Amino acid sequence: MARIAPISGFPEYLPPAHLVERLIVDSLRHTFELHGFAGIETRAMEPVSQLLSKGETSKEIYVVNRLQEQFGDRAGEPPAASSRRAKSQLGLRFDLTVPLARYVLENAGKLQFPFRRHQIGRVWRGERPQEGRYREFIQADVDVVGQGDLPAHYEIELPLVMADAFARLQEFGIPPVRILVNNRKVSQGFYEGLGVADTEAVLRVIDKLDKVGPEVVVELLQSEAGATAAQAEACLRLAQISGSDQACLAEAEELAQSLGAATPLFEQGMAELSALLQAAAAVAPGVITVDFKIARGLDYYTGSVYETFLVGHEDLGSICSGGRYDSLATDGKVSYPGVGLSIGVSRLVARLLSAGLVAPSRPTGTAVMVAVTSEDTRSTSNLVAAQLRARGIATEVAPSAAKFGKQIQFAATRGIPFVWFPPDEGDHSQDDGWQYRGQVKDIRSGEQVEADTATWLPPAADQAVTLEPTHHPA
Amino acid sequence: MARIAPISGFPEYLPPAHLVERLIVDSLRHTFELHGFAGIETRAMEPVSQLLSKGETSKEIYVVNRLQEQFGDRAGEPPAASSRRAKSQLGLRFDLTVPLARYVLENAGKLQFPFRRHQIGRVWRGERPQEGRYREFIQADVDVVGQGDLPAHYEIELPLVMADAFARLQEFGIPPVRILVNNRKVSQGFYEGLGVADTEAVLRVIDKLDKVGPEVVVELLQSEAGATAAQAEACLRLAQISGSDQACLAEAEELAQSLGAATPLFEQGMAELSALLQAAAAVAPGVITVDFKIARGLDYYTGSVYETFLVGHEDLGSICSGGRYDSLATDGKVSYPGVGLSIGVSRLVARLLSAGLVAPSRPTGTAVMVAVTSEDTRSTSNLVAAQLRARGIATEVAPSAAKFGKQIQFAATRGIPFVWFPPDEGDHSQDDGWQYRGQVKDIRSGEQVEADTATWLPPAADQAVTLEPTHHPA
Repeated sequence: MARIAPISGFPEYLPPAHLVERLIVDSLRHTFELHGFAGIETRAMEPVSQLLSKGETSKEIYVVNRLQEQFGDRAGEPPAASSRRAKSQLGLRFDLTVPLARYVLENAGKLQFPFRRHQIGRVWRGERPQEGRYREFIQADVDVVGQGDLPAHYEIELPLVMADAFARLQEFGIPPVRILVNNRKVSQGFYEGLGVADTEAVLRVIDKLDKVGPEVVVELLQSEAGATAAQAEACLRLAQISGSDQACLAEAEELAQSLGAATPLFEQGMAELSALLQAAAAVAPGVITVDFKIARGLDYYTGSVYETFLVGHEDLGSICSGGRYDSLATDGKVSYPGVGLSIGVSRLVARLLSAGLVAPSRPTGTAVMVAVTSEDTRSTSNLVAAQLRARGIATEVAPSAAKFGKQIQFAATRGIPFVWFPPDEGDHSQDDGWQYRGQVKDIRSGEQVEADTATWLPPAADQAVTLEPTHHPA
Repeated sequence: MARIAPISGFPEYLPPAHLVERLIVDSLRHTFELHGFAGIETRAMEPVSQLLSKGETSKEIYVVNRLQEQFGDRAGEPPAASSRRAKSQLGLRFDLTVPLARYVLENAGKLQFPFRRHQIGRVWRGERPQEGRYREFIQADVDVVGQGDLPAHYEIELPLVMADAFARLQEFGIPPVRILVNNRKVSQGFYEGLGVADTEAVLRVIDKLDKVGPEVVVELLQSEAGATAAQAEACLRLAQISGSDQACLAEAEELAQSLGAATPLFEQGMAELSALLQAAAAVAPGVITVDFKIARGLDYYTGSVYETFLVGHEDLGSICSGGRYDSLATDGKVSYPGVGLSIGVSRLVARLLSAGLVAPSRPTGTAVMVAVTSEDTRSTSNLVAAQLRARGIATEVAPSAAKFGKQIQFAATRGIPFVWFPPDEGDHSQDDGWQYRGQVKDIRSGEQVEADTATWLPPAADQAVTLEPTHHPA
């Protein structure tokens, strides 16, 4: 068989690194459920026509065919027919938002609105892989979807759910985050107040500010968004305002007033941002920052927009983004507005691992390996293991009845902290329950004690694997 | 937008049914980890050439193409070139065993052997959907893989891990299971002893016994497996022996002896079955049944084979199957024998739901909804919710400051058991921590009590959602 190499863009982990990912996913799910979000799982495939409804993503879609179809009924088919058929065919989901919109429409009669859901799952994009960008990756989303309307207070609640999720991850040693917030109403109201017609084009240019710098942005606003030099300068000035308290709002207000750009839409967005800052100060101080350059250029947001950066790892890009859509979905009669955020779990985990920021408290879930004295008495070791498991202690039995030194070495290599030596039948067989008493050794310290399967427990720190900050990050 | 209908073969659930699936998956994972199996996740895609290495499954494979490739570089390509290219292209995994074999080869230098792993994930097959057969479904696998060799005691351990997993599910009200076991060494040794050359053909016919009945099997053994009438009759007689104790082994032994078919290979398999029955009697009495008709015809097993039936739901087919491969994977020099079983989680869950056997203890994870007195004091309700969450109580805040009766009605519709009424600021604002005291109502009983966020807890039965047997199965 040919040498097997990993496929670029499809990250896979060895068990200890997988533990890191899994504990992070579990923690996120726990937080989402504490906040009353119901979990759902949608199928991996959606009709390509649905996936293409967000035009700009079409290049990234993986289409799916049965092998038989591909080489059977399709031979000699003209390209046009093939292209038509493609519309009804299935593709892999590239995010969890398109499936949510479809799920809400499909089940609208059976859901309670506002519908609070979380979903953690894999998505696929046929993009060129690079650091932090994968072809298969995990997203963790929370959204609230209303039927007909959705109060603005959800635009405050949702980023604070994510703030709580990241606060809990901080206990594992994950760096703090900054959630940057803007509001499309502020930007659009301001641009309209200035008299710039193509506000979407302005947003797309502003979105590039960090990449291309202020001079190029001012040029592009004129060449691509049809702004005058003065309008371009004003748009840039707004985009350069940011801060974590009401002072930055006052600065933006003053700018808009001085330019006659404080339209009612602008003021409405400002009031929403102000309410968000106020709520954040009470439950997540320091996490939420208003930043008027956050544009999320290509997405159809209509209110708040969010991006999230890991402090000290801003080069990674946003690890949690989202916003409000007035029309996440519509059945033609009723529209379903939504607000939500999506964590790029794979991107986050890859950085935590490559930077050596966190590690599992041990490389394996197993707490105890029961030694085997001889293959004839393996059943005694099995009974010991069953007793320990019945009390919630993760236990495996040694693979072979090698010399005890070799068995201890095996446990050490696996990272199992305790080895249990079962009793010798000859010494005890007259004694009731003799099978369940033995010696247990902490192979890190070498300490060995008498123990009984009915009462022995590993120290609290050794009972379950947890994530820990590493003391020497790479 | 056109009416959206589900896609046949891709089951999706509303939140309460998803809770059932999720709690079952969590329980399986917990059991697997208690037994010292490390979790891994492999990518959803494998090279089609790898997927095709088990020839008989080729019809079921979904191949994956980037949308651009499908309608771009491929136009006018001759079928042969297209077929060649297909070998290097990717397809969706149809089980978790092919990815495991590839993962083991790819990471052999970094894994500890015997490698104990579990994986719970989705797989895809382009089959015609029917009850219990899906195009996208969840499997939950445990395997042990050795490097070079793998002791037979793992063939005893692995079905007992699954027996433990199902025993834990029984606490939720899931019916008990019977794990049926056979050993390829017994069948092959017996057929060889009889002088039947094509033992694989015999196994394929025996596999059909339950479907076609004994008469047809005897015919097919002659027409398809080249057996004489006497040989066919003997093969059938072995296949009709089953039982949970050593008596059924004695019966098979006697049959083989009487026919001169008790070859050394037969005896080796019999000894392995005997050891399995003995071990099972100690830790999972009544679960393991030897059944000599279990053949798993098309798979390349070399030792034990397993199938599992839900008692009272045998029509569903096997919900947990597997066996031992002497060569799960090979790099040409070293071979990697494995033994494992795979639970068809989606098949199991669909039956549990359609038969109404289990239900979540409530339809939502949320334990408490905090009422909102007015939108001006929503922040007080948010603080109450944050305090309760900090103590592990899943809490959401009412969507609007409607009349309390309407808010209670909303909670009732969602299935949330408790509504918390925050205090009125006017009455308490001089009082330290007044925000955290209020009234909490059990909306099922109507009982309402004074409560403090620092100390109040829901009754134990209401703290987390669990699975419960339904009292009136459909």
